Amino acid sequence: MPPVLVVGTVAYDSVETPFGKVEEALGGSATFFSVAASFFTEVRLVACIGKDFQQKDVDFLESRNIDIQGLERMDGQTFRWTGKYGYDLNDAQTLATHLNVLASFEPKLPPSYQSVEYVFLGNLDPLIQRKVMAQVKAPKLIACDTMNYWISGHFASLVETIKQVNILVINDAEARQLTRESNLARAARKILSWGPHTVVVKRGEYGALMFSRADGQRVAVFGTPAYPMEDVFDPTGAGDSFAGGFMGYLAGINRVDEKTLRQAVIFGSVIASFNVEKFSLDRLKELTFTEIELRYREFREMTLFDDVIDWKH
Amino acid sequence: MPPVLVVGTVAYDSVETPFGKVEEALGGSATFFSVAASFFTEVRLVACIGKDFQQKDVDFLESRNIDIQGLERMDGQTFRWTGKYGYDLNDAQTLATHLNVLASFEPKLPPSYQSVEYVFLGNLDPLIQRKVMAQVKAPKLIACDTMNYWISGHFASLVETIKQVNILVINDAEARQLTRESNLARAARKILSWGPHTVVVKRGEYGALMFSRADGQRVAVFGTPAYPMEDVFDPTGAGDSFAGGFMGYLAGINRVDEKTLRQAVIFGSVIASFNVEKFSLDRLKELTFTEIELRYREFREMTLFDDVIDWKH
Repeated sequence: MPPVLVVGTVAYDSVETPFGKVEEALGGSATFFSVAASFFTEVRLVACIGKDFQQKDVDFLESRNIDIQGLERMDGQTFRWTGKYGYDLNDAQTLATHLNVLASFEPKLPPSYQSVEYVFLGNLDPLIQRKVMAQVKAPKLIACDTMNYWISGHFASLVETIKQVNILVINDAEARQLTRESNLARAARKILSWGPHTVVVKRGEYGALMFSRADGQRVAVFGTPAYPMEDVFDPTGAGDSFAGGFMGYLAGINRVDEKTLRQAVIFGSVIASFNVEKFSLDRLKELTFTEIELRYREFREMTLFDDVIDWKH
Repeated sequence: MPPVLVVGTVAYDSVETPFGKVEEALGGSATFFSVAASFFTEVRLVACIGKDFQQKDVDFLESRNIDIQGLERMDGQTFRWTGKYGYDLNDAQTLATHLNVLASFEPKLPPSYQSVEYVFLGNLDPLIQRKVMAQVKAPKLIACDTMNYWISGHFASLVETIKQVNILVINDAEARQLTRESNLARAARKILSWGPHTVVVKRGEYGALMFSRADGQRVAVFGTPAYPMEDVFDPTGAGDSFAGGFMGYLAGINRVDEKTLRQAVIFGSVIASFNVEKFSLDRLKELTFTEIELRYREFREMTLFDDVIDWKH
């Protein structure tokens, strides 16, 4: 089962939602991604931590399917993010960001990572994302994420990165900002014209859309609603755990065609839906593969409808 | 093929979008509904018009499958709505509303309408909606729509109407406002607890969700993304044409079970997706049933994904 490599952030998050708050919880894009992907395959983690990063958190990562040879401990403090959500849980308000060790992070892939075929470039400086790509010898599938900060401040560099990846995983506001296209279908087509064969657009509580020409030149569109949650507790990490489920499944099954990409979008949606049920990684820590399979089946039940074969007009 | 009865507004709309403007175009909730439903079955229209309503518009309605015996011509001017859309085409800004004859409208069903089994109560005063229901002798399915104006100003009366209908068709902001629940799944469950067996939540460019216990006590959830339009020209009437396709199909096929309701949501989504391609009713006027069937099939292609049968963990 091919492993997946992820580069991104490992952080301590302080989060407040209408339902409670948590201080200094393990978080960061690479952490959520890794734990999510670990349900499907082995993960090779590339990230940096500070001197203050706790041993219990190292132990937790190691207890999963996560290789931490690429987790570099640097002088200084671990990256910290403080955020708050209102009743509209779609949008986080960032209260504080302390880059700390992240400011001088230069990812170096351990030799055993360099032959990994499935690669996810988490939300980081696009230049760093390219430096990681350059160290991967024979990639089969490279996907990347980004955020508004890089779109507005490092646009040309970001486009250079996007040109070199196969899949862009992005949210709808970012897709619009990146392409200066208010229409999402047009935005997706523009991104595809830059190089990637697939764009996955995350829409939070509205689900996900995928535009893909993985099977040929025709762009196939796939859409799914999100799982209709009655209790969203903490949306932190929803996008990263989506990406982890998505990439973890593709690597685990070692196939990148339209059919498999669609299943991967559903697995991503499944993992994200669990992730938001509790604070931080609390829900993923207790999650079982049986629960994942059950919710995958619920997605099928939720979206299936019949052909109209008995309709006489 | 059982007909569907609709009560609602017939209006002259003046609409401005980023792509152009139209003045005094035929519109109104009952008009969009009727034209949409007429692809699937006969329509019995109940609405009022003023002395100024043009004969060519009467002729157009008659040229469809629409019975206009219930279209009452009153002293005064036809209802008028003026609205504007920005680049975010989800939300209309109402610039002017002139109720005109609508202010004193008291719908009276012609005798031939009173035995209709499929009834749609368009967005009107909930008291008027109940007065229409009272005139229907043996309804099989009653659905209704509403809007923020009635929710904030006539809440108790609206709830009384909702208690008496089988299906509420509503948009997501309205569902939240109506139930004072920010969570949509909870909002839907609350509405179901009032009486309806089905709630259809329209989410504009994000598609639709349906919560239904039409087949029993268990609430089944169905969701579909919207058709990813590259060119949305004028969203006016999207919700009403959705409702028309939805109810027209149910009446036409004369069945109200979960399976048929799901197909009806797709037909509603299909008609709405065509409706927004041109101003006013221009697209529906030229639409063919072959195009409808083709786009229905595109919805299937867009949403299908496989069971995971070859996954070994």
